[in-house]
Amino acid sequence: MEFNKPRGTRDFLFEDMEERNYVENTIRNVVENYGFKEIKTPIFEDLELFTTKSGEGIKEEIYHFQDKGGRDLALRPELTASVSRLYNNNLQKSAKPLKMYYFGSCFRYERPQAGRFREFWQFGIEVIGGVPIYNEAEIIAMANEALTQVGIKNYEINIGHLGIIKGVLNQLNISSQQQTAIIASIDKEDYELLDKLLEDNDISSEYKNIITSIINIKGSRSDLETLKQLLEDIPESFEALENLDKTLEVLEVFGFDDYVVNLSIARGLDYYTGIVFEIYVPDLGAEKQITGGGTYNLTALFDSEKVESTGFAFGFDRIMEAYHRQNIQVPISSKPKVLVIPVKKEFKLNAIEVAQQLRAHNIVTDIDLKGKKLKKNLSYANNHNFNKVIMIGQQEVEDETVTIKDMDSGCQETIPQNTVVSELLK
Amino acid sequence: MEFNKPRGTRDFLFEDMEERNYVENTIRNVVENYGFKEIKTPIFEDLELFTTKSGEGIKEEIYHFQDKGGRDLALRPELTASVSRLYNNNLQKSAKPLKMYYFGSCFRYERPQAGRFREFWQFGIEVIGGVPIYNEAEIIAMANEALTQVGIKNYEINIGHLGIIKGVLNQLNISSQQQTAIIASIDKEDYELLDKLLEDNDISSEYKNIITSIINIKGSRSDLETLKQLLEDIPESFEALENLDKTLEVLEVFGFDDYVVNLSIARGLDYYTGIVFEIYVPDLGAEKQITGGGTYNLTALFDSEKVESTGFAFGFDRIMEAYHRQNIQVPISSKPKVLVIPVKKEFKLNAIEVAQQLRAHNIVTDIDLKGKKLKKNLSYANNHNFNKVIMIGQQEVEDETVTIKDMDSGCQETIPQNTVVSELLK
Repeated sequence: MEFNKPRGTRDFLFEDMEERNYVENTIRNVVENYGFKEIKTPIFEDLELFTTKSGEGIKEEIYHFQDKGGRDLALRPELTASVSRLYNNNLQKSAKPLKMYYFGSCFRYERPQAGRFREFWQFGIEVIGGVPIYNEAEIIAMANEALTQVGIKNYEINIGHLGIIKGVLNQLNISSQQQTAIIASIDKEDYELLDKLLEDNDISSEYKNIITSIINIKGSRSDLETLKQLLEDIPESFEALENLDKTLEVLEVFGFDDYVVNLSIARGLDYYTGIVFEIYVPDLGAEKQITGGGTYNLTALFDSEKVESTGFAFGFDRIMEAYHRQNIQVPISSKPKVLVIPVKKEFKLNAIEVAQQLRAHNIVTDIDLKGKKLKKNLSYANNHNFNKVIMIGQQEVEDETVTIKDMDSGCQETIPQNTVVSELLK
Repeated sequence: MEFNKPRGTRDFLFEDMEERNYVENTIRNVVENYGFKEIKTPIFEDLELFTTKSGEGIKEEIYHFQDKGGRDLALRPELTASVSRLYNNNLQKSAKPLKMYYFGSCFRYERPQAGRFREFWQFGIEVIGGVPIYNEAEIIAMANEALTQVGIKNYEINIGHLGIIKGVLNQLNISSQQQTAIIASIDKEDYELLDKLLEDNDISSEYKNIITSIINIKGSRSDLETLKQLLEDIPESFEALENLDKTLEVLEVFGFDDYVVNLSIARGLDYYTGIVFEIYVPDLGAEKQITGGGTYNLTALFDSEKVESTGFAFGFDRIMEAYHRQNIQVPISSKPKVLVIPVKKEFKLNAIEVAQQLRAHNIVTDIDLKGKKLKKNLSYANNHNFNKVIMIGQQEVEDETVTIKDMDSGCQETIPQNTVVSELLK
């Protein structure tokens, strides 16, 4: 029989995992330094959790099935619905804000193509409760810190606020259905369609001008000043603008000001209640968005007390794609990596004893138990980034010594067996 | 709407994840010290991979479904089938032995009960190729080291070899179907059934005596000596016995001799070609088995060159269960954990500046951005294991100082703001 991995999925081999673990652990370390703690939810949930959040249409894009008890289940397509459920089931009474992170795979049934997989990973964070403006500033500073630590270059953090345009459309009494269509046209940058929709809704040229001015803002915080005058008679928009400005002010105190104010970011209109932000790596072309987030009503799915959550998710596979395109390397470990070689088969047991001594002192140690020729072992050590090899032959066994060879310098020396650990750790 | 997690699955909250991460990372560190490297395979595979390995009956116990393209897929019930596939697809030509590990969730549709979940985790390792006897000894020593490092107590490592009893049954020309039934009766410790099966197959009292002698062995390596005489005319059994004895000899050189030789371990007869071993934690009662492994023919599923693999999987959830029952604690981190408190709301921005300084130096730092009262913040810090709190009030802002309180001693002192990092890291 011949078996292959299912279409759109991936196997990760040693080097892939070394890189992915490095990136994951780097991000983990940053978010833990910011006081976030991990949670984990099941790989599948009730299908209804996702249809309630995203509509029946989501069924076309996800893996869903009945279990043997007739329950409709779905492999999770994203993690915020699961986080809402977890919060609702377990954490409603906990002290706020709750700062949590999660890392795991999600599933979408879509045509596999560059940067899109049927199983993909998300690393996300949420701050539930607290004061959104401060939470927003903190998590954007943190996202920037995480990407910097990973080594990603040339990324662009775009920040907007849907309340600004929403305020204008509400003032004009545009129906929620039409609002969604208008926002979708902005998202697709289809300005012909946008014009048509504004026309269809009898929007005056004054308001058209206001809408155009809003979505044209792609710049610095000072660009918001020009909008203030335009929006002073639209209270909802004006308030959103001031909130955005305040978030940016706090963000600067957090030490980050290299953002782009971008009011054309169009994420789910009914969902977000505060700022929205997206991070792009232009090197990645059509799949350039590596992060999306903002402040939203966490409990919209439930009949519970309203709580806002501020969060984002890194598209982990897109970050890995940027990592490769930008040719970033995993830093060389300061821990030595050692191969113990019995020069002849009969010294295997002696080699085992030495290897166990090293492992007990937390030194990464491999050992040739197959009985390969010395030359083959040395070339294996060379190809697999061992820092040191330890050779054990007749003379070494008789004298209770070992011969250590440094793979970088090529130097070798023979030392007493009982000094080998201190020699390696010095 | 009210949503709950699907039956038989679990949410893991902050403390659960802290413990699980500690145990996972401890095991990771041990296996990496032994030269193992991580791989990862998809959460689902073609259903046929599992039915080919385990028979059509497996469908009753697993989650399987058709995707929108009509492919029959299954959530993996275990990981060795996936590892075989990964090896066959990607690694056949790589230098042997290949030492790999994996950690991930698996799925079984079974009645949820104590210690059995529908989503559960396995931490497994495989050594592909090389010399089984040495690999076996190395991985058993490693399993012992990992459990010791985690802090599990009173576990019992049982080691056997199916070739011993198989050799006897082969010598008697017992059909493979009958062999499977006999082994199953031994596994269930149903000795009445075993007697009946031996009777049905016309086995002489001499051979019955041999079989009883084999399955009664639960002791030390020296107990194997008594069997050698009994088995000297059954070459297949004698060879298996000698192989087991050699593995145990090498295992002792690896520094571990606290095992139980147990020849009644009955795992899949057709599957295992070398030793088998199981680790029990008797504290866990019916779910006492936390590990199973041995040497098997990795490529039995494929038309490729025969390769043996030696491996085991830790039932991660069972290890966590033992961890809880035995009341093991995550060691206290040596890294300080700090809460920065603005004494009044107007000092929030000053507090942010201090927090960012600490985080930039890899110190776990949380900050009150909500504007809680000092007393509430101190009680929060106390309940959430912060080592230090930093308070910033009017005087501190004017003098560019901070007040640090040690949560253990209760002592507090006011120091210049620019010395706070060195004070915390000293």
